Amino acid sequence: MIHDVNILDCTVRDGGLVNDWDFSVEFVRDLYQALSAAGVDYMEIGYKNSPKLLKGNNSGPWRFLNESFLKEVIPQKTGTKLSALVDIGRVDENDIVDRSESMLDLIRVACYVKDVDKAVDLVRKFHDRGYETTINIMALSHVSETELLEAFRLIHDSPVDVVYIVDSYGHLDFKTIDVLAKKFRDHLPGKKLGIHTHNNMQLAFANTIAAMDKGVTYLDSSVFGMGRAAGNCTTELLLGYLKNPKYNLKPVLTFLEKWMIPLREKVEWGYIVPYMITGMLNEHPRSAMALRNGPDKDKYADFYDRLTSPKSNVSNQAM
Amino acid sequence: MIHDVNILDCTVRDGGLVNDWDFSVEFVRDLYQALSAAGVDYMEIGYKNSPKLLKGNNSGPWRFLNESFLKEVIPQKTGTKLSALVDIGRVDENDIVDRSESMLDLIRVACYVKDVDKAVDLVRKFHDRGYETTINIMALSHVSETELLEAFRLIHDSPVDVVYIVDSYGHLDFKTIDVLAKKFRDHLPGKKLGIHTHNNMQLAFANTIAAMDKGVTYLDSSVFGMGRAAGNCTTELLLGYLKNPKYNLKPVLTFLEKWMIPLREKVEWGYIVPYMITGMLNEHPRSAMALRNGPDKDKYADFYDRLTSPKSNVSNQAM
Repeated sequence: MIHDVNILDCTVRDGGLVNDWDFSVEFVRDLYQALSAAGVDYMEIGYKNSPKLLKGNNSGPWRFLNESFLKEVIPQKTGTKLSALVDIGRVDENDIVDRSESMLDLIRVACYVKDVDKAVDLVRKFHDRGYETTINIMALSHVSETELLEAFRLIHDSPVDVVYIVDSYGHLDFKTIDVLAKKFRDHLPGKKLGIHTHNNMQLAFANTIAAMDKGVTYLDSSVFGMGRAAGNCTTELLLGYLKNPKYNLKPVLTFLEKWMIPLREKVEWGYIVPYMITGMLNEHPRSAMALRNGPDKDKYADFYDRLTSPKSNVSNQAM
Repeated sequence: MIHDVNILDCTVRDGGLVNDWDFSVEFVRDLYQALSAAGVDYMEIGYKNSPKLLKGNNSGPWRFLNESFLKEVIPQKTGTKLSALVDIGRVDENDIVDRSESMLDLIRVACYVKDVDKAVDLVRKFHDRGYETTINIMALSHVSETELLEAFRLIHDSPVDVVYIVDSYGHLDFKTIDVLAKKFRDHLPGKKLGIHTHNNMQLAFANTIAAMDKGVTYLDSSVFGMGRAAGNCTTELLLGYLKNPKYNLKPVLTFLEKWMIPLREKVEWGYIVPYMITGMLNEHPRSAMALRNGPDKDKYADFYDRLTSPKSNVSNQAM
């Protein structure tokens, strides 16, 4: 059976959270060529948030994409479509030109479940300007059934093309993914589904293929898994695993050895014990990220004690 | 629901394949204490092969365990049982004293499917000497249905306690694990089942919990995943994930920071691209291990070309 899915590589976008989007134009161009040759369906080339609404003027250009810069970076588009992510409250909708004038094909709206109404509102506008659209519901491991059903009602009548299951904290296992995928499918007939995983518990790839098994067809990944904290499902695992003649592993292997091995020596992401701990505890990785930036980065037992102590002031849940 | 399973930590045995069993007595003692405090059910403390039947006189003592040495290492046993692995043709059955005189509780016999008859023969002897026993069928991703059914017939009438599904090449996904577990269960009523995974495709933990879901109750793991090539399911992930009050994560976290972080800087194992490639191609990792020991260790695309070329003389399958 052919796996009829779409791979969306989000290296530049999610990986940018690791290195403050400090990717050279040569890196991004090479990545686009590699992904194109590999048959990857979409490349997420950054965020399309507004620098007016968000601190970070020193960040690399992939955090605040603009069209003229994108035209320089990618003078010739291939079959690999381009996407950008926006956050609720950080995007200026006036920055989004009509798709006919844009390098972008897909705009993805990331939101917490409480902001699905705002996401639907943005999606309508981007849809009307001709874009493919997704809504990515973050931190699903913290979302109640009631909240989710309310979100489904709002999304159901919207023009959004794809709705994403996002395991921001890397907490979910395949049994929960099965339940979620079924719930999304039942309540959102006519919508395509996507999945975005984090590798805190070494389940990013497993959960992605488990979701595919349940009818999810938009699969997020990044080369060498580069993404915040524990990183993502790796693009190379998907390319090697999926049975579809459109995909080729080798161009991405070439990219890995040229770019990712040296990069990984400078900046850190991936399955690392403190991220495993926050994943297990169903928490945002920020406490583990702070730990990894300090002198106690390998003091796992103390870190675990702090997060599980009833008086914890590190844990999200206690804040 | 309580997970009523047994964790068998095989760090010293499988990890020894990485560092030629160069573990200090202090390391092994600390590990036994940590695993005991964590509630781990079994610790595999090495191989019980014979130095007369196998080259390797320079290897560490955990490769050729002997009873008087073991008594020095572990002066006081806890609730954590001890096991040793033997290989067909490499064990001298006269080296195995009665369990009443031994530090060991469990002897595991590893074999390829063609040698299951020899494994059953050994198991009978070890069983008669009072040991718990397992048969670990290696390289299952290379085994045909016919071979497996023949093996089941031999095992069915043997006194073996546990039969292991072993994914030596790190090739299997959870769908295949499901099928195998069902097959083992259907053909071996009355036998308990075990699973031993490798992490070539980042599926070691996922496959272990998938197997548990299908009634497999002996789960192999190693601290920090230390084991040959891509390594194993990690003990810390199991301890954190399993719902059973007998398990505690913290003692293993303390062990990780003291021993495994420094050790991993000296010797290499884990999810590394050449191991992913052999896993995907369903091959023994030896070609990737050789690559990692040479100057081209990060030449992934060339390595992939060599293994997938019709004229390949690197690949197992062509040998």
